[in-house]
Amino acid sequence: MEKVTVLGAGSWGTALATVLADNGHDTLIWSHREDQATEIHEHHTNAKYLKDVTLPANLHATANMAQAIEHASIVVMAVPTKGIRETCQKMMQTLDKPVLFVHVSKGIEPGSLLRISEIMREELPASVIEDLVVLSGPSHAEEVVKQHPTTVAASCESLVAAERVQDLFMNQYFRVYTNPDVIGVEVGGALKNVIALAAGAVDGIGYGDNAKAALITRGLAEISRLGVKMGAKPLTFMGLTGMGDLIVTCTSVHSRNYRAGFMLGEGKKLEQVLDEMGMVVEGVRTAKAAHQLAEKYDVALPISAALYSVLFEDKTPLDAVDDLMLRMKKREMDEIYNN
Amino acid sequence: MEKVTVLGAGSWGTALATVLADNGHDTLIWSHREDQATEIHEHHTNAKYLKDVTLPANLHATANMAQAIEHASIVVMAVPTKGIRETCQKMMQTLDKPVLFVHVSKGIEPGSLLRISEIMREELPASVIEDLVVLSGPSHAEEVVKQHPTTVAASCESLVAAERVQDLFMNQYFRVYTNPDVIGVEVGGALKNVIALAAGAVDGIGYGDNAKAALITRGLAEISRLGVKMGAKPLTFMGLTGMGDLIVTCTSVHSRNYRAGFMLGEGKKLEQVLDEMGMVVEGVRTAKAAHQLAEKYDVALPISAALYSVLFEDKTPLDAVDDLMLRMKKREMDEIYNN
Repeated sequence: MEKVTVLGAGSWGTALATVLADNGHDTLIWSHREDQATEIHEHHTNAKYLKDVTLPANLHATANMAQAIEHASIVVMAVPTKGIRETCQKMMQTLDKPVLFVHVSKGIEPGSLLRISEIMREELPASVIEDLVVLSGPSHAEEVVKQHPTTVAASCESLVAAERVQDLFMNQYFRVYTNPDVIGVEVGGALKNVIALAAGAVDGIGYGDNAKAALITRGLAEISRLGVKMGAKPLTFMGLTGMGDLIVTCTSVHSRNYRAGFMLGEGKKLEQVLDEMGMVVEGVRTAKAAHQLAEKYDVALPISAALYSVLFEDKTPLDAVDDLMLRMKKREMDEIYNN
Repeated sequence: MEKVTVLGAGSWGTALATVLADNGHDTLIWSHREDQATEIHEHHTNAKYLKDVTLPANLHATANMAQAIEHASIVVMAVPTKGIRETCQKMMQTLDKPVLFVHVSKGIEPGSLLRISEIMREELPASVIEDLVVLSGPSHAEEVVKQHPTTVAASCESLVAAERVQDLFMNQYFRVYTNPDVIGVEVGGALKNVIALAAGAVDGIGYGDNAKAALITRGLAEISRLGVKMGAKPLTFMGLTGMGDLIVTCTSVHSRNYRAGFMLGEGKKLEQVLDEMGMVVEGVRTAKAAHQLAEKYDVALPISAALYSVLFEDKTPLDAVDDLMLRMKKREMDEIYNN
């Protein structure tokens, strides 16, 4: 049994805390909102993020960061990309011993263009990081809490640390594989949200599954192109954290990024979409980062560029998608792999 | 303008004939059923296969093979895998000049383990084959006739022939890329139907998008493993005819193989499923071929094997899927790529 704290009580943090509690670990979830911590701790629900779900009785919650950190030998970071730095800073007011970190966020910081693990290593002294493992894969929270079979990867340069995280989460319905390619796992997880926004827009326009399948296929190709330039291993993009997560995010009704893209495709403006969502849509910020990454690494990301022009340059989704679909004819290999 | 005959008046043959007629080609569609040919020729409908669709006025139809063959300088083969040999034999009663063949079937023949182009080369003398091009990709007929954007690949060792087929079909809504890897295109097109049956079963059981995404991801890995042993190029499986077609077939309500798998997952028996479908479900025969291919090429195809055991060995879908999901923990790369 491990003593684990999950920082962040959104749908994914809560679902993972549920898995940990199910596995018999002494699990505490931290929310920055007092009322949410109380709801989880006393009523065993988190209604805003996981409707109609009863959380395990042995899952505790607090809004007190010091208490949360004192509890933990393992810390699971489950806050949006935007909140990573602030949460690390808050944590450092208490943390004075090395713990094993697991992060489950999917984004890249615009401006710095850092991946999540890089942001964390900037904010946290090496002395408190026993190891840092990424947990990622095709895993909607809504299905995990129903104990539907789910597979993810635990990624770390240290196999020992990855296997400790594997053992921590693994059970009958939650299958964890290890993968040493942290860059590939983080880049795939971040960029798939951008493609999911575009896939949602294709559906919102009213185009069909043929168009969406083509977009997803070329989306993975563009993620791979970028990832390899950033130092990732190409095979990672064919695995659970690449293709797997991309598929689930582009085709599932549970995906926020897909739903936000759908509304864009229907003709709604970004501001209105974000208002209606009421939750963080990671892909919007990641689209900015992708725009900057394309320049930094000198790699063509046509789908990300098209989405960027819709989000931030007032291009209509229909024009953007038609431009993408109607590019000149070319040999498929040229189109997909050298572009 | 080309003179084209489409052999086979199922949904895909009819949709492709519609594209050709839209592009201004002199297009004739052949059906083995007199009443269907009359319906298409006189009423411009093919209600059994494409409900509520009006076909182009310049699309003609016949049930007379001799007339169909005399018409054509290009022949599009759009019959199920099972009908390829017989259709070739029927064609050879008339055909006495070289024509350009395009085939659009997706299967592998159990027993012989031949791909479609190989079957055709067995049945047709070299003297009548000007060239033989495969057209494949994520392309549900129902969306093509609505002119929703669709992308496919034309594959042939001869780039000149592939480009002729590209020019033949290419228009604003139907985008054609060329790809020289015939083996990869044919293997990907055939095997994806087996994975789609399994994906349907996962949904029919009531498992969710997480499980399905994992299955599709590993499905592509197993198709690639087999394809590479058969002589295909690995990158082809990441393209439209591999990943693209796999995604659309595993996630679209239009997919027959997916729907048949769904019914299996719900607990129906194979015979009952095929009765209810009333159309050819290619994946069932291809599952037999996959079973034999795994042995011939000594490659593990765990999803195809699990499906085979459900189709032909009376294993329950739930047991088969659980066996797949619950295999022992392993490094992801081992699991996906070396297995």
